[in-house]
Order: sequence, then structure tokens, then C-alpha cells
Amino acid sequence: MSVTAAQGFRASGVAAGLKSSGKADVALVVNDGPSSAAAAVFTSNRCKANPVLWSEEAIKAGSARAVVLNSGGANCYTGPEGFAVTHATAELVAESLGLGTVDVQVCSTGLIGLLNDKDTLLAGVRNAVGELDADGGQAAAEAIMTTDSVPKQAVVSADGFTVGGMAKGAGMLAPALATMLVVITTDADVTAEQADAALRAATRTTFDRLDSDGCQSTNDTVLLMASGASGTTPDPDAFAEAVHSVCHSLAVQLLADAEGADHEITIEVVNAATEDDAVEVGRSIARSNLFKCAIFGKDPNWGRVLASVGTTQAAFDPADLDVALNGVWVCRNSGPSESPEKVDLEPRAVTVTVDLKAGDATASVWTNDLTHAYVHENSAYST
Amino acid sequence: MSVTAAQGFRASGVAAGLKSSGKADVALVVNDGPSSAAAAVFTSNRCKANPVLWSEEAIKAGSARAVVLNSGGANCYTGPEGFAVTHATAELVAESLGLGTVDVQVCSTGLIGLLNDKDTLLAGVRNAVGELDADGGQAAAEAIMTTDSVPKQAVVSADGFTVGGMAKGAGMLAPALATMLVVITTDADVTAEQADAALRAATRTTFDRLDSDGCQSTNDTVLLMASGASGTTPDPDAFAEAVHSVCHSLAVQLLADAEGADHEITIEVVNAATEDDAVEVGRSIARSNLFKCAIFGKDPNWGRVLASVGTTQAAFDPADLDVALNGVWVCRNSGPSESPEKVDLEPRAVTVTVDLKAGDATASVWTNDLTHAYVHENSAYST
Repeated sequence: MSVTAAQGFRASGVAAGLKSSGKADVALVVNDGPSSAAAAVFTSNRCKANPVLWSEEAIKAGSARAVVLNSGGANCYTGPEGFAVTHATAELVAESLGLGTVDVQVCSTGLIGLLNDKDTLLAGVRNAVGELDADGGQAAAEAIMTTDSVPKQAVVSADGFTVGGMAKGAGMLAPALATMLVVITTDADVTAEQADAALRAATRTTFDRLDSDGCQSTNDTVLLMASGASGTTPDPDAFAEAVHSVCHSLAVQLLADAEGADHEITIEVVNAATEDDAVEVGRSIARSNLFKCAIFGKDPNWGRVLASVGTTQAAFDPADLDVALNGVWVCRNSGPSESPEKVDLEPRAVTVTVDLKAGDATASVWTNDLTHAYVHENSAYST
Repeated sequence: MSVTAAQGFRASGVAAGLKSSGKADVALVVNDGPSSAAAAVFTSNRCKANPVLWSEEAIKAGSARAVVLNSGGANCYTGPEGFAVTHATAELVAESLGLGTVDVQVCSTGLIGLLNDKDTLLAGVRNAVGELDADGGQAAAEAIMTTDSVPKQAVVSADGFTVGGMAKGAGMLAPALATMLVVITTDADVTAEQADAALRAATRTTFDRLDSDGCQSTNDTVLLMASGASGTTPDPDAFAEAVHSVCHSLAVQLLADAEGADHEITIEVVNAATEDDAVEVGRSIARSNLFKCAIFGKDPNWGRVLASVGTTQAAFDPADLDVALNGVWVCRNSGPSESPEKVDLEPRAVTVTVDLKAGDATASVWTNDLTHAYVHENSAYST
């Protein structure tokens, strides 16, 4: 399933010993072709991890034959030695599989500033090569987990082709991109340009709309590899739709597994002048710790929603805003309306709707509440 | 003391019954002149409370004779009725003291969306007028408290004149401005223009550098009233310095009393290309929940500092950044340096230093850690 659901792919996941828990920590996904078209998007954080620095260059030809991923260390801010470890990893995969080094994408995740032990990692990579299997998707999805409680996988079968994917990520989730590694595979026969267009369109309205905790990662990577093994040249819209479906499913899974969260919150901004305005307002609310604490406390505190809206540059009349919590319009025309007591915040799923009354654009941003468990988990992560 | 330390001022604080606790909730500060020069800065949040909408207009003439403040309700998003309550409050103070209504500034603080009961509030205002006293500073400082654990007051005596102030604020503290009400009084004989210049210069590097929780308020107000009662026309630099000292002292007191905080964190950004760059980098770190959780957990996790730096547009080389925690340079040239084990995060005061190596500008931003107590307090505030 997941990355091995599409024809032409093998995968594996092994325990190299990078994680002190002894759990699987090295994953490998190989595209056996015939095509090697590929596209990727990376974190927009200017402080990028070594694997991102490598993979951004390597993907420029629009081709990738394999991706090797490790958990147990982000290999970010590890100096020149860290880049050498990334390069050695790609080299070893390439040699083992008879590929060029630039055909190998590298991803790492874990603590920033921690240099992975090179020998431990390379031994794991050798092992992962030996374990490659057409049914290895599940093992790979498990090997990339860090604080994730469950592996995240998705598969969409379309007209003559399949798109599958796996993702990891449970914290440092913020737009452009979230802290996550995502590998998507397809057996559709598409060009690198088509793959790139479909991937960018899909990430723009899925992973880029996740803002779990406002913290942007140094390692985010979303990679799409196309084998062409189905022999199907898909309709571009159908292909884009299938890629979007997989990205959306994985994004929702990331949100549901966010560290310490009690609620998954969808912030719908409607009647905005532009989509950018709607996204700006949604993100602003998603980043309000006070609002997120209120949802944790099941407190329908709409004032904290409006206080966040007011920090944006979006078009709206401050005296004419409406806010609904789970469908109850607690604020109309910027004043109290229906009783907040009607709002039921017991269920995990919460929807906040903000009507800007400034146009007809709409966007949703997804976030979580701010809980004791989030503070606990993130105050004890590296020590 | 505080707002009544300077000559020419009377103040009072009374319990009107707006707070369910029965504590004091209405404060009044009156400038008996001879001068009525005044200046104020207000929240930059576009969703402004009714008292801010009133006071912004009323201060435009550069004059104020009195300020009436209530806790127990922010009078924000309370519709046209809310503005009417603000105006009635100003009118009653004006009538009672023989002033023009526009000579009266109004401030409110408390829950957004809550309309204060007009009769309760006005009865409290009448009572506050009756209680006005040249020693009423302490009572006024207590009456503006919400979740504050202590009143905040400061006095600076300079060459022939005095500047004193009071502040409230313990949450929703974020730049431009923090959630806070501040009243500063002086008996210096200054023009409204001098008062405005000194106040803006002081707030820019004090209150505007506080970012306790990234949440910007709808009610923030900093008001400076000058009575001229000392007869001293101060040297402009000496006056600006005294106003700055009072603002700095009050800002530090706000930081120390932030809701649920275990640590006061100073983020020093040095060798920036511009002061704006330094402030942008400082604020970015101050808003990282992951970094703030790490400090709560006494975890010297410098990777989270760099991940925040990377989200900014400031000038720097991502491969050449240095980070110190309490003076220990745990990161040099964007790689690990001194052992994080040398960093002692037991004391409440924490200093993070980021060297951008891009120029010679410097700025400090102040924040707090993110704790269980913050989540607890802010998940239970309105219910």
C-alpha cells in the first residue's frame, strides 16, 4: 500500500539504530521506471537542513530514481560534516542500485543540531537496500515516524493509474510547509513538468493550509515520483485531482495526529476580497495562542477570533464581521448575536467561520488547539 | 505614588461591581493643570474597542484633563450600545468635573464582547469622582488590574520635574501594543508635541518590544498627561529619558507578571543589518511556541531558535549564525559549538543572543516561556 501501491516501486523500512528506542528509522523508496519523472517542494524556511540543500539541487533535472529517508536526527545545522553525511547517503544508495548520485533524494527528520552517526546511518541504508520489496510501503511509512502516533498513508486509484503516498509529521506544523516528509508515488506516465504542476497545485491548498503550531520546519519535503509503469498517460486534470486527493488525505491525517491536540479546528474564511486575504485571516486565527487555549477549554470565546482578524491587512469593515462557532453565529455585525451557550465544543472537530463581507473568495486553514499535552511534549522533546 | 507622584494630579479607584469578585474596577486620574498637554498611542489592531475609538478622536487636540478606566469588561465588539456607554462615561466625568467631554479619555479592559452594565459603571464613576485624592495613585493602579497579580507602578524624579505611571496587563501581550493600559503623568511643562514625541520614542523601544504571547489586543492604550504644575520646562532629552525610564520599568513589570510564565526571556539580536531586521528576528523567536516550550522545559534547544530565524526576511547568511543561551555559545557558524549542558536554565531570567553577522544594529525583544499555567489560565478565562 501507500508508496508501493503504484506499479514500478519498491520500498523498505529498517532499524539502523539512530533512534534510541530501537524502532525503524531508515526508509527507502525506489522507482524502477520506466520513467523517472519527479517533482518536489521544500520548506520555505531559509535555514534549511542539509538533505534539503542537497535534494533541492538534485531534483532540478526533474528526475529521481530513489529517496532515502531517516528519522532520529534532522541533520540540520550540523555544519559541513552534516552535508557530507547527506551526500554519502545518496552516494551509497546510488552505488547499490546502479544509479547516478543526483537521482537520489535525501530526507531527514528529528532533532535539529544533531549529527547522525555516519557509520550507523550507512549500515542502515545498506540494510534498507537489501530489504526493498514491492510490498514495503507499510515498513517505509513506519520508519519515517518521529513523534507520530500512527503512520500516515493514502492511495487513490484513478482511470488506469494509481497515486499513493506516505507522510510523517506531528509538530512544527506550519505553512510553507509543515514539518513533515511526504513521498508520493504514481505509475502514471507524466512529464516532470506535469508532476511539478500537479504537486504545487495540490500542496498549495493542502499542506500549505496546515498550521498546527505556527512553527515552520527546516526539513519539510514533499516528493512526487512517477514510474510510468501503468502505461497510462492520464488526463492532466484527473492526474492533478488524484495527487490533490492523496495530499489532502495525508494533510488531514497529519492534523489529526498533531502533538497533544484535543481538537482539530477548521477555520473557514468566507466572502473575502481575495483568496490571499482569506488565507491571511485564517492563518492569523490559527496562530492565536489565546484562541487555541479557549478551544482547548471548550470556551466559545469569539472575541479572540476578532482580535486576530484585526491584526491582518485583509479587506473588511471592523464594524461588520460575523463569526460562527460550529454553525452558531455568536457574532453578527461585530456584536454579540446567538448565545455562546449554544456552541458545543465537546467533539474533536471544530469549525470556525468568519464572514468578511468583502467579496466572494473563500479559504480554509486547519489548526489544532493548544493543550497541556502540547506544552508537555514540546518541553521534554530533546532532553 | 505612581500617577499621583507628579504635582497637579488626583486619582481614585473604586469597586463599582463590574467584577464578579467585588474588587476595585473603576479608576479615575485627573489633571488639575495648569497645563493639559497630552499624548497617547493606541493598539494597531484594526478591531478596536469602543474606548479606543473614542479616545483616539478625543486626543487629537493634544489635550486631556482626565482619564477614566474600567476593568471587568473590554467594551469591544459590543455594538453601538457599547460606544454609547463609553461616551456616557466620558460625559459624566466631564460634567462632574466641569470639563469638556473631549477632555476625557476612556479606557476599558476585560473580556471582549461583554457590554458593561451602564448603570453599574456610571454609579462607579460617580463614586470615583467623590474619592479623588492627591494620594490616590495606589488605589487607581489596583482598580485597573484584571489577571495581574500585582499592581504595576513607576516613578522617576528628574531635574525639577517628576514622571510617574501605572500599568495593567498580563496576557495578550504583543507588539504594537501589548494588552495593557498605561497612564503616565508628569508635572513637567511640555507641549503636546513634546509629550507625543517623548511618548512615541519611549513606547517604540519598550512596550512595543514586549511579545509575551503574540496576541495583540483591541484595547491597548498608553496615555501621557502633563500638568505643568512643577513650573519646570525640562530639557527635551531629559524629559524623553524620564518618560522612557518609566515606560521601561512598567514594561519589565508587565513581563514579570505575564500569565503563567516561569521565565522572562530577553532575545538580543546583534550585528543585524538594520534595527528593523533585529526586531523582526527577535519577534519571530518570541512567537515560536516550540522555543517557548523548550525554555519552560529548561531545554537549551537552539535548533528551535534557528528555525525561527529562518522564517524572517532579515539579512543574514543561513550558514553563518551564532546563538548563545545565557552566554554559552551553543551554536557557532550555524553548527554545534559549546555543550548545551553548560547552559543553566533554572533562573527565571533567560537571555538568548543571536548574532546575524550582517551589520551593527541591535535590538532586544522580551517574551515569556509557554507553560502549563498559561494554557490553564487561558483555557478557563471567560467561562
